[in-house]
Amino acid sequence: MAPRPSEFQLIAGLFAPLATTRNALGLKDDAATLPQKAGHDIVVTADAIVSGVHFLDADPADTVAQKALRVNLSDLAAKGATPAAYLMTLALPPSTDVKWLRAFADGLSADQKTYGITLLGGDTTGTPGPLTISITAFGHVPKGKMLHRSRARTGDLLFVTGSIGDAAGGLAVLKGEGRWLSHAVRDHLIHRYRTPQPRTALAKGLLGIASASIDVSDGLIADVGHIAETSGKRIVIDIESVPRSAALHGLWGDGRQALLKAISGGDDYELAFTAPERHTRRIMALSAKTGVSISRIGHVEKGEGVALRDSHGKPVKLPKASGWTHF
Amino acid sequence: MAPRPSEFQLIAGLFAPLATTRNALGLKDDAATLPQKAGHDIVVTADAIVSGVHFLDADPADTVAQKALRVNLSDLAAKGATPAAYLMTLALPPSTDVKWLRAFADGLSADQKTYGITLLGGDTTGTPGPLTISITAFGHVPKGKMLHRSRARTGDLLFVTGSIGDAAGGLAVLKGEGRWLSHAVRDHLIHRYRTPQPRTALAKGLLGIASASIDVSDGLIADVGHIAETSGKRIVIDIESVPRSAALHGLWGDGRQALLKAISGGDDYELAFTAPERHTRRIMALSAKTGVSISRIGHVEKGEGVALRDSHGKPVKLPKASGWTHF
Repeated sequence: MAPRPSEFQLIAGLFAPLATTRNALGLKDDAATLPQKAGHDIVVTADAIVSGVHFLDADPADTVAQKALRVNLSDLAAKGATPAAYLMTLALPPSTDVKWLRAFADGLSADQKTYGITLLGGDTTGTPGPLTISITAFGHVPKGKMLHRSRARTGDLLFVTGSIGDAAGGLAVLKGEGRWLSHAVRDHLIHRYRTPQPRTALAKGLLGIASASIDVSDGLIADVGHIAETSGKRIVIDIESVPRSAALHGLWGDGRQALLKAISGGDDYELAFTAPERHTRRIMALSAKTGVSISRIGHVEKGEGVALRDSHGKPVKLPKASGWTHF
Repeated sequence: MAPRPSEFQLIAGLFAPLATTRNALGLKDDAATLPQKAGHDIVVTADAIVSGVHFLDADPADTVAQKALRVNLSDLAAKGATPAAYLMTLALPPSTDVKWLRAFADGLSADQKTYGITLLGGDTTGTPGPLTISITAFGHVPKGKMLHRSRARTGDLLFVTGSIGDAAGGLAVLKGEGRWLSHAVRDHLIHRYRTPQPRTALAKGLLGIASASIDVSDGLIADVGHIAETSGKRIVIDIESVPRSAALHGLWGDGRQALLKAISGGDDYELAFTAPERHTRRIMALSAKTGVSISRIGHVEKGEGVALRDSHGKPVKLPKASGWTHF
């Protein structure tokens, strides 16, 4: 059932070069010391992804590795933290071959360079079930400055980065929708599903600006709902202000149903955050500096829950499925 | 395939009380800050366990939780670190019921009190495969003092805590061996398999005494082999000095084959460590103080690999299967 010993040694050989810090002891010690940074807190987060649940069996190995890593980096970005290191446990089905694992390690290696991080340790085991990857990621944030979900204030505005719904669109394409679309459009959406772009570049800039922040993983409505709930506020989303890509318009059109699908779909890994109106200019400057678009899509009120509003200010009913499940 | 949203909320409700530190933000924030300790390094380790590979489907939920946690605490103990906190990702098959999860959470809760630790965060997802638990654990060790595998010196003695082979015996009993044994004996062995006793009580005391240290998870021969390999030494084990329990004698007798099975079997989670001979008295004092037996079972030489020796000093051939696989 489990890979043979020689295979585990081979795996160790593939991953050892990813431990680019002395703290990791070349992955030979089953433990490491965490890199600490003077004047900073260490932020930690953990997420697991499972084949057939969070990614498709046929997804390329390097994108699977990158998705596993990036969903965690996205959590760090939402906290205003700069990523530093990660640990990984892998449960591998007997069918996993070395070529696949090599591409998987290459995907991690590329991302380590992109995000300036190192592997610190982990564990590989066999499983009779699907490939399961669990990652714990660490980042640094100036002491006491970590962004929380729970600190949205009445009167704050709601912002979101990038565009919303592309990942759900990409999954739909992978499942057979949009066969009439050009390859370029289909690939764009699939790429958005397979390889999220954690908004690491914005993390530092949001400190001292955002009052509350979350990454959009369960879906915009669900995640803004988490801010509303933990902050004890009501958040109103102007749904027609929610930024969507041309590719997504191509797939689903621009009707109301398309819009509701976009704001219910998961896996975007954009950031949704609240901030006082007076910081709007700084937010736009941050967007210009980083090249990441930031859109104002709503505001925070007294009350509870999430409310949707159209461009005439009329209430829109919440769609039934508004997050949580990936398929 | 995945549990329904309401189930995830229920799970969140079960685990939230385990986050007993403000750092964990009540598990509502998908991230936490790590508790830091002045003058100390943070040691981190990660291990995953899979149903049907590292534990049996029928094992009680609280022991499954405790095994998942304790295999990590055992790694920390081997580093000389005092445990502080952990994160956990759970991949749950659809068959997992609430009663089972409640017992699982109770098992964690009891261990948090035993070891003085807190849950910091994590993630729960569905899986079409077996229950998979991945834990990342953190501990503190005085700055620069973490114990390594790689620092055994020629002339050091080799020690091991507790007794060796009981976990392998317990697994054998669970698979049908030893039906003639008393319930008490069988239960003792099963308990040793299901709920390892990480040698946390010894961790601090080994700092400044042990030259190299590892926990016995793959099997005594395999793990002592890791010390030998990373230290660039040869380690000789006097096999008849390896401590075995009366219960294990009851199951397998005291012949040579029984002995070889004991030192090849995994999952004991005892500590094996090397130390200069001059520290023997301090080691015996540490044993007396903590109530954990410590046996001298060999020594470190120039060379490479692990060699076995009988009580007449004659070489004994290494058994073929000497670790790595759990079943």
